Amino acid sequence: MPGMSNLDQAKKAEAFRALHSEVLLLPNVWDIAGARIIEEAGFPAIATTSAGVAFARGFPDGQKIHRFQMFGKIKQIAAAVKVPVTADVEAGYGDTPERAASTGGSVILAGAVGLNLEDATGEAERPLVDLSLQLEKIRAIRETAEKRGVPLVVNARTDVYLLQVGDPAKRYDEAVHRLTAFSDAGADCVFVPGLRDAATIGRLVSDVRCPVNILAGPGSPSVAELRALGVRRISLGSGPMRATLGLLRRLAEELKTLGTYSTMEGAPSHAEMNELMKANQRAKSQG
Amino acid sequence: MPGMSNLDQAKKAEAFRALHSEVLLLPNVWDIAGARIIEEAGFPAIATTSAGVAFARGFPDGQKIHRFQMFGKIKQIAAAVKVPVTADVEAGYGDTPERAASTGGSVILAGAVGLNLEDATGEAERPLVDLSLQLEKIRAIRETAEKRGVPLVVNARTDVYLLQVGDPAKRYDEAVHRLTAFSDAGADCVFVPGLRDAATIGRLVSDVRCPVNILAGPGSPSVAELRALGVRRISLGSGPMRATLGLLRRLAEELKTLGTYSTMEGAPSHAEMNELMKANQRAKSQG
Repeated sequence: MPGMSNLDQAKKAEAFRALHSEVLLLPNVWDIAGARIIEEAGFPAIATTSAGVAFARGFPDGQKIHRFQMFGKIKQIAAAVKVPVTADVEAGYGDTPERAASTGGSVILAGAVGLNLEDATGEAERPLVDLSLQLEKIRAIRETAEKRGVPLVVNARTDVYLLQVGDPAKRYDEAVHRLTAFSDAGADCVFVPGLRDAATIGRLVSDVRCPVNILAGPGSPSVAELRALGVRRISLGSGPMRATLGLLRRLAEELKTLGTYSTMEGAPSHAEMNELMKANQRAKSQG
Repeated sequence: MPGMSNLDQAKKAEAFRALHSEVLLLPNVWDIAGARIIEEAGFPAIATTSAGVAFARGFPDGQKIHRFQMFGKIKQIAAAVKVPVTADVEAGYGDTPERAASTGGSVILAGAVGLNLEDATGEAERPLVDLSLQLEKIRAIRETAEKRGVPLVVNARTDVYLLQVGDPAKRYDEAVHRLTAFSDAGADCVFVPGLRDAATIGRLVSDVRCPVNILAGPGSPSVAELRALGVRRISLGSGPMRATLGLLRRLAEELKTLGTYSTMEGAPSHAEMNELMKANQRAKSQG
């Protein structure tokens, strides 16, 4: 954010951390328009979706987009809203603690106050980063954040369930082992996408003694159920972005087959969008 | 498009021009993901929405976005699809024929084969560009296109109806006067957003003797009706983009109030999106 001092950003990071004391809802966004819509809807923080940013820019998910393109979008979004922004930076764009530290620094420079760091390698043979290296990466980010005076909220993610790694019977123990180690290494919150079973979520929340983030979507337990299970953060990943593409596809299909426009109903008007964006431009010019 | 010669691009422009012989449907897009969705849905051409591109990037509509940002997005979209792309370049980013010519050149360099040029000034006192200047701008674009060997399809737009300019009783004659002059100056198609009344559309189509583009949305005559009235091109402007923001807003509201995720149903899966984008990346690497 232009003119934001590290002290302002530090306060913002602490305010974002405090939001994890009850259940934090994060409908992830991939561009400024979406970020402004979510902010105006009264959400207290904004999370980016790396897959959504990649898709919008024409790349598959999984660190195919250049890090500069990803940070460029994060910066745009952080500058466009007043609420704290947390950035999905995939596996940290590099397989060394030094690169992870540099990524943490880039998150701060982009104006965000939190980040997601996942342990997927993108390789079929060895799908997860060695735990010891992942812990070093988390520590390196923590250290960079401290040096720069912005206490980034680190959301450390394991893809044990998402990638269905190893023996299904051992997955739960592996997830708890990794998430606990992430927390011990300094993560503020831990994230386990792919886990949807209510009983297992409840068990994991009590076994991992730090805030837990669950990825939700159609078929997931409701917010009320997840809250009752002790979940502290619910995000939607690329779901909202893909949902908008589903709408676009239905709209195009309606145009082609029925020749009508009902899928377009319920849209903010052109005037309303101009107003939303003018407010954004005013906020920017005031620094 | 990398590796596209001016000859290839010229052929693409002619193919796009030929699509105006029957009714051409253009559900406008604002990023690569949307462009790929529309291409995969079988549409024979892609149109950009300048308002959508501006909103996504945090600007109000009306030439507030920098032209480089607009052309950057047009170029991304043109490089991501095989079908012809037509670019909405607002009033041409400049109020001289020289600037309009330069904008025409930029459209060609960005890989597009058509453009929309509107006659709005953005000024309340004098809402429309003087007709003689607008004609010079159209001729300048035509000339540039000829020089560069890419016969751009020029869609010339008047905002007489959209901006409700002057005496309502004189609007129709003013629109026909402008559109006929645009056509005589070399426009391939003429565009009159804000006009929704079927009878008036039918009358205008017979009075203006070149292909007519109508902006459609909820409340507009259906595609079948517009076709019967002789309309040759139907576009949706920023409607699809705003419709996706409407969906995002409903999705966020559902998350906050009901704590459920049904608005996200019907989305393409993560795997499907990866495949759509991998196909895009493959097409690019083959040049």
